[in-house]
Amino acid sequence: MTTLSPYDSMSPVTQAAYRAKAAAADLAPLPRAVKDDALLAIADALEVRTAEIVEANAKDVAKARENGTSEAIVDRLTLTPERVRAIASDVRDVAKLPDPVGEVVRGSTLPNGIDLRQVRVPLGVVGIIYEARPNVTVDAAALCLKSGNAVLLRGSGSAYASNTALVRVIRDAVGGAGLPADAVQLVPGESRDSVRELMRARGLVDVLIPRGGASLIRTVVNESTVPVIETGTGNCHVYVDAQADIDTAVEILINSKAQRVSVCNAAETLLVHQDIAAEFLPRALDALAEAGVTVHADDRVMAYAKDSKATVVEATPEDWETEYLSHDIAAAVVDSLDKAVEHIRLWTSGHTEAIVTTSQQAARRFTQLVDSTTVAVNASTRFTDGGQFGFGAEIGISTQKLHARGPMGLPELTSTKYIVTGDGHVRR
Amino acid sequence: MTTLSPYDSMSPVTQAAYRAKAAAADLAPLPRAVKDDALLAIADALEVRTAEIVEANAKDVAKARENGTSEAIVDRLTLTPERVRAIASDVRDVAKLPDPVGEVVRGSTLPNGIDLRQVRVPLGVVGIIYEARPNVTVDAAALCLKSGNAVLLRGSGSAYASNTALVRVIRDAVGGAGLPADAVQLVPGESRDSVRELMRARGLVDVLIPRGGASLIRTVVNESTVPVIETGTGNCHVYVDAQADIDTAVEILINSKAQRVSVCNAAETLLVHQDIAAEFLPRALDALAEAGVTVHADDRVMAYAKDSKATVVEATPEDWETEYLSHDIAAAVVDSLDKAVEHIRLWTSGHTEAIVTTSQQAARRFTQLVDSTTVAVNASTRFTDGGQFGFGAEIGISTQKLHARGPMGLPELTSTKYIVTGDGHVRR
Repeated sequence: MTTLSPYDSMSPVTQAAYRAKAAAADLAPLPRAVKDDALLAIADALEVRTAEIVEANAKDVAKARENGTSEAIVDRLTLTPERVRAIASDVRDVAKLPDPVGEVVRGSTLPNGIDLRQVRVPLGVVGIIYEARPNVTVDAAALCLKSGNAVLLRGSGSAYASNTALVRVIRDAVGGAGLPADAVQLVPGESRDSVRELMRARGLVDVLIPRGGASLIRTVVNESTVPVIETGTGNCHVYVDAQADIDTAVEILINSKAQRVSVCNAAETLLVHQDIAAEFLPRALDALAEAGVTVHADDRVMAYAKDSKATVVEATPEDWETEYLSHDIAAAVVDSLDKAVEHIRLWTSGHTEAIVTTSQQAARRFTQLVDSTTVAVNASTRFTDGGQFGFGAEIGISTQKLHARGPMGLPELTSTKYIVTGDGHVRR
Repeated sequence: MTTLSPYDSMSPVTQAAYRAKAAAADLAPLPRAVKDDALLAIADALEVRTAEIVEANAKDVAKARENGTSEAIVDRLTLTPERVRAIASDVRDVAKLPDPVGEVVRGSTLPNGIDLRQVRVPLGVVGIIYEARPNVTVDAAALCLKSGNAVLLRGSGSAYASNTALVRVIRDAVGGAGLPADAVQLVPGESRDSVRELMRARGLVDVLIPRGGASLIRTVVNESTVPVIETGTGNCHVYVDAQADIDTAVEILINSKAQRVSVCNAAETLLVHQDIAAEFLPRALDALAEAGVTVHADDRVMAYAKDSKATVVEATPEDWETEYLSHDIAAAVVDSLDKAVEHIRLWTSGHTEAIVTTSQQAARRFTQLVDSTTVAVNASTRFTDGGQFGFGAEIGISTQKLHARGPMGLPELTSTKYIVTGDGHVRR
């Protein structure tokens, strides 16, 4: 007769969450050196067991091809020995980053002599729901471990074999380094039910971070009782002010739109001040044409399109809110900076907006009035990125206002607690 | 023929939220002086129009008495001229606090020459759902205005006349000071439906802060699609370590439990290390008896109760998770500090836990392992409070890990945004 464990009556997802919570309690007080050793062990294990990982990945790739998946997505799914080495190298980079846990965020001695310290602590259990790319599995595990958190990983069904192999390698390394293996778990089950359970595990899971397309993020935001950090949707704007250097404006527009079109910090809408439209738009439309970008133009932009090389279609109201993630851009002429701000506030997803201007007053007003995670002045929207910001790594880009906003590095994976130290202090 | 406004098809609550969002955009860039002037105008108006406020309040009080409301709650509801003066004085104190908006949280020049600044900005629209006390109406409005936020106030139906009068006075003063009056609004309607609508106003309302009993908070947490900051429930513990000064331990226990029993930072459970139980418990039980506290004791505490003056009842498992908010305390003897931590982690609401000890190692281990908003060492649990912490004011005490944890002052009513400044920087 076997003894019943309290876990026996729970669903596999709830069991995983309980185990993660227990592991999180063990991880929280660990010093940096112990966590870094575990990260280095993970990097080594990924390299040593590359064959096992690539073999598992081949099954996912074969299945994807059978299902007629596009080659672009198959490419994102594919792990080669070189890619596994790069992933291992990224884990070593995370080990080199400072540990946010233990940082004294603020501290003072109160008038009554009590010492007050606000100290960074891990969040506890972090759930990540993500799509396709198996490198996220390792990235997320490394960032969560480094910040003292246990992680529940819910990747795409299409990468299940790859993720299973990666998590097995990670868990072995973590356990071998003397840390609880349950600090890193793949959420069991490939069905939608396991996502739903994860979203209801309030009290066990401290935060859910969905990474992926807009519909995944919307679902998690609407259905989760666990607190969610909304990430990633980027309907970014480039506003070319009346007083802008034309060369700079063209260069920033093309870089923001076309340097890489499939990412959340790529520009999706161009707004041009009416006073500079006649000078700027002909140049801009030709440059967009050269970059292979189709312009979804309002009437006033359309007026300049006839004489350009540009591929132009008429903009509909939908264009103003679309995140194309493709070689498309919406474009409009506006009467003033304030009208540009108004347009942005109405349609933006709140990710990144850029202004190109030589006017200090315009730059100041735009940065004051635009309410997005990042406002760029005379710089490409493409800089909104944890790596570019010097954070060393990024778990996602928060487009919400609570907890973290913009690129999230290691400190954004922590909470704080207060330590109140007295010598017998009581309240009068 | 009147022109249709876009608001006409909306419910009153959604209309209020849209108006709040528009007001928030106007408030965000305002400098401190303008906001402080509005706060001082509110304080003056509260004093000038005291009669109007007290008269409205008398209706609520009369209705409460008719409904047989307890005198304690009637007292909390009642506004006298003195109390209105005190509320006005609190508003002047908020005006004296530094403005969190505009604070540069971090900043650096990136290797490519871009200047990066992370700057505090208002959250936008803050919804407060609260019970009974009409002073919260003014407090919340003042703190939100100071931090550049618009506020939607949803007070208790039992204070509707009082809140209506207070908000009318506040809005008149805000408008008179040249700020948008819609920055402060009472959520229309006294029914539960208006709360439900507020909880679904994602995209219009940036955060909901429920203040009140556990069931109100649970409802909001479970049903809201707007991000919620969970506040207030406090099942706080006092742990008396093997190495504790007995006098200090008794004093901290009595202060934590009985200095004011109805508040979230009052102690609800006493845990005593077995090695000090024989020395400490007889003294503690007598002191609790003197303070009028009933002890819900486990078997091992019960053994000491017979010879004491204490009123003692047997503890049930429910006692370990109960926030009494009354002259009651649960009490248990534990085998070790680690067992105390285990008990706390299992049952706590995560508010405040205190250790009484003369051992540096014990203090260090307890503060490392306990995962609550505040860990007190040789100090009363009653210090967990924005006023006590020197924050000047408090909108509530967050017991969750995201965004803010522990007492929330003005900075906790803000988000941040990044300002990226280049001179034509593009990404290569």
